[in-house]
Amino acid sequence: MPRQVTAFSNPLVKQARALREKKHRRAEGLFLAEGLRILTEAREAGVLPVILFFSDATHALVAALVEAVEAAGGEAIETTPDILHKISGKENPQTVIGVYRQLDTSLDRIDRAAAPLWIVAQALRDPGNLGTILRTGDAVGAGGLILIDDCVDPFSVESVRASMGALFTQSIATARWPDFVTWLRSAPAQLIGTSLRASVDYQEACYTAPAFILVGNEQAGLPAAYEEECDVLVKMPMHGKADSLNAAVATAVMAYEVINQWRAT
Amino acid sequence: MPRQVTAFSNPLVKQARALREKKHRRAEGLFLAEGLRILTEAREAGVLPVILFFSDATHALVAALVEAVEAAGGEAIETTPDILHKISGKENPQTVIGVYRQLDTSLDRIDRAAAPLWIVAQALRDPGNLGTILRTGDAVGAGGLILIDDCVDPFSVESVRASMGALFTQSIATARWPDFVTWLRSAPAQLIGTSLRASVDYQEACYTAPAFILVGNEQAGLPAAYEEECDVLVKMPMHGKADSLNAAVATAVMAYEVINQWRAT
Repeated sequence: MPRQVTAFSNPLVKQARALREKKHRRAEGLFLAEGLRILTEAREAGVLPVILFFSDATHALVAALVEAVEAAGGEAIETTPDILHKISGKENPQTVIGVYRQLDTSLDRIDRAAAPLWIVAQALRDPGNLGTILRTGDAVGAGGLILIDDCVDPFSVESVRASMGALFTQSIATARWPDFVTWLRSAPAQLIGTSLRASVDYQEACYTAPAFILVGNEQAGLPAAYEEECDVLVKMPMHGKADSLNAAVATAVMAYEVINQWRAT
Repeated sequence: MPRQVTAFSNPLVKQARALREKKHRRAEGLFLAEGLRILTEAREAGVLPVILFFSDATHALVAALVEAVEAAGGEAIETTPDILHKISGKENPQTVIGVYRQLDTSLDRIDRAAAPLWIVAQALRDPGNLGTILRTGDAVGAGGLILIDDCVDPFSVESVRASMGALFTQSIATARWPDFVTWLRSAPAQLIGTSLRASVDYQEACYTAPAFILVGNEQAGLPAAYEEECDVLVKMPMHGKADSLNAAVATAVMAYEVINQWRAT
């Protein structure tokens, strides 16, 4: 039976709201996801929040979430749109907000045999880009996203939002570059980098699974030493004046080329 | 000779700052662009601000901007990082901010013969997506972006920022759907839509110039009637659980397929 909370001062409301900040997420090992579509995506992937805030139990998908959360021993809390708005800070309050346990992001939990394609991002700074890359990863059947160096927090509200639920279907790992390289080279892998300095067109290279697409920082791109580690370094055609693509866009264009090659054979 | 402004209360500072809001942009027909990279991109495309705020004239690219603005009869104003911060509202203040005249966005200014590829966006709501689509348009050699229905303002600070200067190299038009269709059908054109309901794989269709890629609203996708107007309706492979891509990502994957086909022939 869901309990009702209508006071802004309720400790659970305050705790949830604090999860918008990275230090609280890190301290508690929790994060927020908002919106019926994302929470339903998570439920279908078998991931349930430890606390579910909801405001409209007449909606069948909300009711399904409440039932699943309670059956799993979590807490479902009926509350007001105002309080949901206070927790999320978003202008259009969602009907559901979930407090989730952060996933283990150690590299050794990544099973490279589980998928033919993986995405590796280095020093990614924009949470929207990170979430969008997760969403693309889901669409192309990637196994997950490995975050190298100092990336933005994948459990930030903006990143979860942009991932549209893919945060719950993609494995996520964080690692330092030397540790990642050691892990990568401990078994077969093809590391694919894109670079304006490359001479090979991205449609002329041959991609083999398990393939790891390496994408660099939004401003600086990949460090030269990281490019040198790549087994394949390719360039995409650029017909414009700016010679660049958004990092999430470049990742997607590259990933679709890889899966298109595999579809063709 | 640039004049110096160091007071927050200066009318030009106030006017510039007000351009962060759409109503002021519309009323004055002006907009803001920030950052040396974007303003230099604009200068190289032959577009100069009517007012340039700058804080560090020792930088060669800043000096080049100051000189070009003054030679064109615009005003260059030397100011402080604090005031630049106040105008942009961005945490890391830029060294330059330009106030630009809005471009004419009437559909009849679009010359479809000027490029083989164009992008058409319907009811796009996210300024980051809009800017990212402009940036992609530049990279793929598109002529510009046609905005249908109620799209976010292409001259917003966020959109200009995400475009990385492509706002100045891409033509932009706004139109209502019926007027767009009339214009589109007045000359040869191929309208390309992507849809989960389509049965044709996006790599199996044949694309012909001038091609117009039509992308729908982030939440709802394209209205059915708009899909019916398309000459080619295709789907991209989706291997994941969520069956969707970010709108700017989908646009880029589609656009690269079109130019890749043309490169292959």
